[in-house]
Amino acid sequence: MTPRLNPSIATLSAPPIPVVQGWGRAYDGARGPLIDLSQAVPGYPPHPRMLRWLAEAAASPEACAYGAIEGEDSLRAAYAGETASLYGATISARNIHITSGCNQAFVVASMAVAGPGDRVLLTNPCYFNHETTLAMQGIGVDYVTLQPETGFLPDPARVAAALTPGRKALALVSPNNPTGAVYPPPLLKDLFDLCAARGVWLILDETYRDFLPDAGAPHGLFAEPHWADTLIGLYSFSKSFCIPGHRVAAITAGESVVEAVAKIMDNVQICAPRAAQMALAKALPALADWCAENRAEIARRRVALIAAVAQNPDWQIGAIGAYFAFLRHPWPERTSLDVAQQLATQNGIITIPGRFFGADQDEWLRLAFANADAPTLATLADRLRD
Amino acid sequence: MTPRLNPSIATLSAPPIPVVQGWGRAYDGARGPLIDLSQAVPGYPPHPRMLRWLAEAAASPEACAYGAIEGEDSLRAAYAGETASLYGATISARNIHITSGCNQAFVVASMAVAGPGDRVLLTNPCYFNHETTLAMQGIGVDYVTLQPETGFLPDPARVAAALTPGRKALALVSPNNPTGAVYPPPLLKDLFDLCAARGVWLILDETYRDFLPDAGAPHGLFAEPHWADTLIGLYSFSKSFCIPGHRVAAITAGESVVEAVAKIMDNVQICAPRAAQMALAKALPALADWCAENRAEIARRRVALIAAVAQNPDWQIGAIGAYFAFLRHPWPERTSLDVAQQLATQNGIITIPGRFFGADQDEWLRLAFANADAPTLATLADRLRD
Repeated sequence: MTPRLNPSIATLSAPPIPVVQGWGRAYDGARGPLIDLSQAVPGYPPHPRMLRWLAEAAASPEACAYGAIEGEDSLRAAYAGETASLYGATISARNIHITSGCNQAFVVASMAVAGPGDRVLLTNPCYFNHETTLAMQGIGVDYVTLQPETGFLPDPARVAAALTPGRKALALVSPNNPTGAVYPPPLLKDLFDLCAARGVWLILDETYRDFLPDAGAPHGLFAEPHWADTLIGLYSFSKSFCIPGHRVAAITAGESVVEAVAKIMDNVQICAPRAAQMALAKALPALADWCAENRAEIARRRVALIAAVAQNPDWQIGAIGAYFAFLRHPWPERTSLDVAQQLATQNGIITIPGRFFGADQDEWLRLAFANADAPTLATLADRLRD
Repeated sequence: MTPRLNPSIATLSAPPIPVVQGWGRAYDGARGPLIDLSQAVPGYPPHPRMLRWLAEAAASPEACAYGAIEGEDSLRAAYAGETASLYGATISARNIHITSGCNQAFVVASMAVAGPGDRVLLTNPCYFNHETTLAMQGIGVDYVTLQPETGFLPDPARVAAALTPGRKALALVSPNNPTGAVYPPPLLKDLFDLCAARGVWLILDETYRDFLPDAGAPHGLFAEPHWADTLIGLYSFSKSFCIPGHRVAAITAGESVVEAVAKIMDNVQICAPRAAQMALAKALPALADWCAENRAEIARRRVALIAAVAQNPDWQIGAIGAYFAFLRHPWPERTSLDVAQQLATQNGIITIPGRFFGADQDEWLRLAFANADAPTLATLADRLRD
């Protein structure tokens, strides 16, 4: 008698990235080199000093020993300092919990606030891993539908209507994944106030924050006097320092949340791997100028994508922001999977079908435009034809 | 209105290791240097070549990019080869899923087979993180009580009685944590057959396998013709290669289990950090002799502990194995927390109270004797005296 797997996992959709990258392998090169705009991976290498610090830390016996569950003191302090400075807020190392990547940050943050049978509110479209993370935990998911006409910004009135009893958290991503939309500070303040009034956690994933066109605070929420009673911030070092393979991210939250997360992290991983944490503690202040240059580079890429799409008026940009663009393809009668597969196998452009971000998002494709440099993106003007 | 945390997490017991290590910090050195026998950490450094490979991998831009969800091909192949050879079994790379540490291996393996409301059978005493991992997922836990008289070996008749409908898995640890007991191959075969007959998964954590006194196969289960329909093996590279801070472990299972685990891992972490995986792919064959020397060293430590305890007849070894010993302290009227705290703060020996491994384990302390060399362990003869 063969035992059964957990049906919640068996029915979970398969990870999308390997699927779309498989399409790319079927491309014959006829339209030029493959352009991979699927998984968010900056197309430039990490800083040489970053690689040196990673190697130095990995060579140390200290990095081989178990570390603190909450993360390296050095990195928690460095990131707390940066966060406090960026947001004009009072944030200490005790408000920071390091995790092994931002997906893990969402797993442990959502588990800290919701259990099986509880419900969490996402947007539609949403980042697919948020959806599957909640589903695999037995947490119910509700959605606030975002309208293309408003640039895929959540409408506070719709959020208010959807935050019925039993909803433990509202999870948002800004700059958004998949649409790229950057949520304006007053909108985030309205949504924060709404969550605070309803006693609902606001989980705000800011993985792509460092690629915003402007260097200032993305919002004022961490400067709110009682922010820690409502807000849980997520951030990833993967994109900003081009080191996703090392898996390091951070949660910024009240101390009671950090304490709950530490209990979960002890089971999930004991501690995030140490060597990359040690290296990042050095990089955070030292590579600030390099990060600023990358911000400017991503801005150039954004301009290049907008120009390339403008030459194909049958394609339409629904939203574009710090890393991603959400593009409406010209074939309303075709599924986004069909279009994305053809775009990959015949035109050599890997994108992610809108369907993966929401059942009714078939008109759209997500482009991680920040993966490719401006000259490459300029070739999309031709490559998007046919 | 301040939102509430998930009550299942709030009621979860705090991670024990930081608690007992805190007791150690209160020790004044009066009885000699602090001896930390709490968290399992071999007291010798990693091999210099291991450190070099870790540094080389961390210096590479390749390790900075996202890797395959299931793990590096090189490490999956190397570990499959080692497992096949050790157990005389047919195991391919497709049977291996790399995780970020063995706690994570248990999280994702248990989630693959059980969901909220299901139940899993553990032993009492058990490894505390198995208990909290299941509790935080909303998976119910039942226990088979182990008897000191039988050396803390599970009785198949009791297991058979406890595997009532709704139990999705039996989770065992051999060599055992906390007791150290090594489960004999015929016992494991009986328990495997029982699970197979009942359609229940057998999750077998063999983190301490490489420290068994004998180098042969610890059991024959992977050589059973239909092993993959019942068995899920867990293994950790942390102890064998002295690199817990790098967090790398492996699941050995049927391909359908590996596929389910990949879905979960995509949410939990996308992939285990790559640099340490790349280094381990080299170390696995190359450092086999070094691992064999460590096996012999741990055997010397076991002998030293047995000799030291023998000089204190009021202390009694309940079980001892590949890494841990379970010791009965001489004060039946006192709690294990009380005894362990006094032993740490006054005698300078950090152990883990039996209570952390089971509600009725107050007579016992867990000693990770493999942390300390034989001369240090010899001093326990005196240090255990009040």
